[in-house]
Amino acid sequence: MPALTLAELQAHLGGTIRGDANTRINGVASLLHAEPHQLSFLLSSKYLVQARASAAGALIVPDALDAELLQPCLAVANPHASFARAVALLQPEPLLEPGIHASAVIAEDAVIGAEVCIGPGAVIGSGANIGARCQIGALSVIGPGVKLGEDCFLHARAVVQHGCILGNRVILHPGAVIGADGFGLAWDKSIEGGRWLKVPQAGRVILEDDVEVGANTCIDRGALDDTVIETGVKLDNQIQIAHNCRIGRHTAIAACAGVAGSSTIGAYCQIGGAALIQGHIDICDRVTVSAGTFVTKTIREPGVYTSVQPLMKHEDWKHNAAHLRHLDALVRRVKALEEKLKDN
Amino acid sequence: MPALTLAELQAHLGGTIRGDANTRINGVASLLHAEPHQLSFLLSSKYLVQARASAAGALIVPDALDAELLQPCLAVANPHASFARAVALLQPEPLLEPGIHASAVIAEDAVIGAEVCIGPGAVIGSGANIGARCQIGALSVIGPGVKLGEDCFLHARAVVQHGCILGNRVILHPGAVIGADGFGLAWDKSIEGGRWLKVPQAGRVILEDDVEVGANTCIDRGALDDTVIETGVKLDNQIQIAHNCRIGRHTAIAACAGVAGSSTIGAYCQIGGAALIQGHIDICDRVTVSAGTFVTKTIREPGVYTSVQPLMKHEDWKHNAAHLRHLDALVRRVKALEEKLKDN
Amino acid sequence: MPALTLAELQAHLGGTIRGDANTRINGVASLLHAEPHQLSFLLSSKYLVQARASAAGALIVPDALDAELLQPCLAVANPHASFARAVALLQPEPLLEPGIHASAVIAEDAVIGAEVCIGPGAVIGSGANIGARCQIGALSVIGPGVKLGEDCFLHARAVVQHGCILGNRVILHPGAVIGADGFGLAWDKSIEGGRWLKVPQAGRVILEDDVEVGANTCIDRGALDDTVIETGVKLDNQIQIAHNCRIGRHTAIAACAGVAGSSTIGAYCQIGGAALIQGHIDICDRVTVSAGTFVTKTIREPGVYTSVQPLMKHEDWKHNAAHLRHLDALVRRVKALEEKLKDN
Repeated sequence: MPALTLAELQAHLGGTIRGDANTRINGVASLLHAEPHQLSFLLSSKYLVQARASAAGALIVPDALDAELLQPCLAVANPHASFARAVALLQPEPLLEPGIHASAVIAEDAVIGAEVCIGPGAVIGSGANIGARCQIGALSVIGPGVKLGEDCFLHARAVVQHGCILGNRVILHPGAVIGADGFGLAWDKSIEGGRWLKVPQAGRVILEDDVEVGANTCIDRGALDDTVIETGVKLDNQIQIAHNCRIGRHTAIAACAGVAGSSTIGAYCQIGGAALIQGHIDICDRVTVSAGTFVTKTIREPGVYTSVQPLMKHEDWKHNAAHLRHLDALVRRVKALEEKLKDN
Repeated sequence: MPALTLAELQAHLGGTIRGDANTRINGVASLLHAEPHQLSFLLSSKYLVQARASAAGALIVPDALDAELLQPCLAVANPHASFARAVALLQPEPLLEPGIHASAVIAEDAVIGAEVCIGPGAVIGSGANIGARCQIGALSVIGPGVKLGEDCFLHARAVVQHGCILGNRVILHPGAVIGADGFGLAWDKSIEGGRWLKVPQAGRVILEDDVEVGANTCIDRGALDDTVIETGVKLDNQIQIAHNCRIGRHTAIAACAGVAGSSTIGAYCQIGGAALIQGHIDICDRVTVSAGTFVTKTIREPGVYTSVQPLMKHEDWKHNAAHLRHLDALVRRVKALEEKLKDN
Repeated sequence: MPALTLAELQAHLGGTIRGDANTRINGVASLLHAEPHQLSFLLSSKYLVQARASAAGALIVPDALDAELLQPCLAVANPHASFARAVALLQPEPLLEPGIHASAVIAEDAVIGAEVCIGPGAVIGSGANIGARCQIGALSVIGPGVKLGEDCFLHARAVVQHGCILGNRVILHPGAVIGADGFGLAWDKSIEGGRWLKVPQAGRVILEDDVEVGANTCIDRGALDDTVIETGVKLDNQIQIAHNCRIGRHTAIAACAGVAGSSTIGAYCQIGGAALIQGHIDICDRVTVSAGTFVTKTIREPGVYTSVQPLMKHEDWKHNAAHLRHLDALVRRVKALEEKLKDN
């Protein structure tokens, strides 16, 4: 791993050094587990006790908190972002081996940019276009006609189906599936009893610049128009984005969430884990949806929205759940009491 | 893309032409984005304003609605189904390249039908039997002893584990896993504290004709008997079907739903996204389960069933959630009031 | 398939034979479908009627129940665990073909233990270490520096990302992704409007001995410290375990559950399907979380916990859901009535 002095880190990250600027670090760790050769960080004064007890060789701290600590510190305005940059410098993710592995299967008419790395067994389809410096992980599949911008990183075993478009610096984690068919079905009564007829999905998926897609997350191609994920959107693992959706720029969606067909989510939203967005609704910019929440109607006002059953001991829940089934009757009983007292 | 006149489309789809039967179209698009060389459609008079404003070269419309429009129209009884067929004609999905790719690994004793296409890196196990005209996508894995009917389409990176049986025209999308082990565990007290002992899963998965399985959806093999998905069932992405389940013919299940072990769902049901069906229960034919609903008991009557918390602003939810925890107390308070008034 | 007499089975499993110890069986089946050459089992007297009607050649039964049956029986203390062992003997899962397939891509400096089997197209990264007798399925990917203990079974198309550590006898099902990046994001205001900055994930995933991971389940690597799944933990399909979590020994988690970042679950817990554990909370040992339940706070007491909306007919639900939105108002109305009656 690379080793840097605190002064060298400061040259990359800015901020103010307190203590020995020649302190040498070669890795990162949590406050609890850091060793003297490692860098750690704290977000606020809430972590001061832990920070003072930490064996870390140096700390990234919020401005003004450096005076509270004995370790060499780099004080910055946004310690989380600065620490993220420090990790990238000190413990860079392993890249693919340079060049194109002999076992990769690349269509003759595919266009492969400069310095592209392609891992073992990866498959690149006819007419695909891979921008400069892309990393295509082992056993990934790039369908016919797919276009990737520059500096994309597809981890092992990602799939991009035919015709989809990825911008620059897009990251796909293992098992991500971009551009599978949307769930388009027409009910066909031409046979006895009826059956579902598949509606071929003629649209594409567009992932704009800096989109990140988690492991085993699926984004379906549009039925006719495209499914669009705008610049800077971050999607965690196991998410389902159905056909014709549009997710606005810099929105983040946590794991296991689902967005049903033809819904739009605005910019700068935060969607909690396992949240469910019904089809054909719109969520405006700057909305936070709590984890586990089911959004059943269009949201036109920024704010925090929730629909979660509170956790109970099972015995308590049993009593409450029975009442929940009869809430309508309870409301009528209260109304009857109110009427009675009015007469009094 | 193929180009067809409206008259040629009519020859395939039936219906009545209004306007120029020689109108030539070579693609499909939504009302909003269609260009003069493209076909679009509308489902009902609800979309008339959009349809009138559309630049589409021709429209598929419900019977009797053609008179309301200026574009050349094909009037049909079921526009959604007819449009589905038109898309298949005008923008057919790209097929695999003919033949068996040199990098595919096929067991010597596997039986490969006529005109089967097998993509790069696909693996076909010992004793597998692949019916005529199947398409096996890149990096798919067909386990030992698996049987596929005719005209199946396995997209890239599907997995069918040993011994499973697929009918004709089955579609598997990328990442689908058919026949992984069910979650069978026996509690074993023979070591201190106890531990889970794996119960080997000896059943199979049977997918009957015309089943479609979405991306990253899992269907587990039976513990002893088989897990069975009947004719025409359509499963969206990210679904989990546990061991020993049976899903009745022509039932459709939306994304992220889960069906726990040994449950059965009848024919012609519609299960909403992220719905959860508990284990060992039965759902009769023609039941609709709303999205996000948790089915905790057997359903014997057709109809629509729901169990969803309504969406609220977080502040309102906080107040309500507190009361939910004390609903039992509230019911007792109402009862006390009723008693008091009775005494009055 | 191997054939065994009841006496031979007894030699492996213990227990007491009633009836012909020479009864020969060569497979397993359910009570309903078993044929005379097959073994079946029952867990309790609840299944006696079915057992009496079964054509099974022999039965594994709870102690003392053998007298109730006419078939040859092996009476044991724990029929479920004994049957699990019998299935493993009578219908062993197919193993990979011996040796390393010519199409596998193995880094020169990887260390491959004795009797390891590696399937077609599998990829083993630089510095990886594969313990004796491991089975690495077709098209699996083992990243650089990964260590596997002995007797692991990776089914087709599993992924283990760089640096992760697996103990002995770990099982990964198809599509499982171990060690993808956690969802670490820092909000960066250095550009207009702000954006998410990726926090590189420097930790690993540690899977201890006897862990089983279901199909398409994801376990993210830690941000700084490791994500740890302790000995004997069993994870079903489609589960998401976020970064920095720790799951205690012999805990079982059913399909579609999600555990958000930095949460810990104790030992001997049972987490139901689609349950959701919020981030940064702790669940103590021996807790059962019901299926579909959302755990929003730390649980310090063993027991069963639930938060589920009861299932209703949709029409009933509509009325109730409206009241749920106004529960706060209802409570105030009851309070007003109480006040009024106090004044009376």
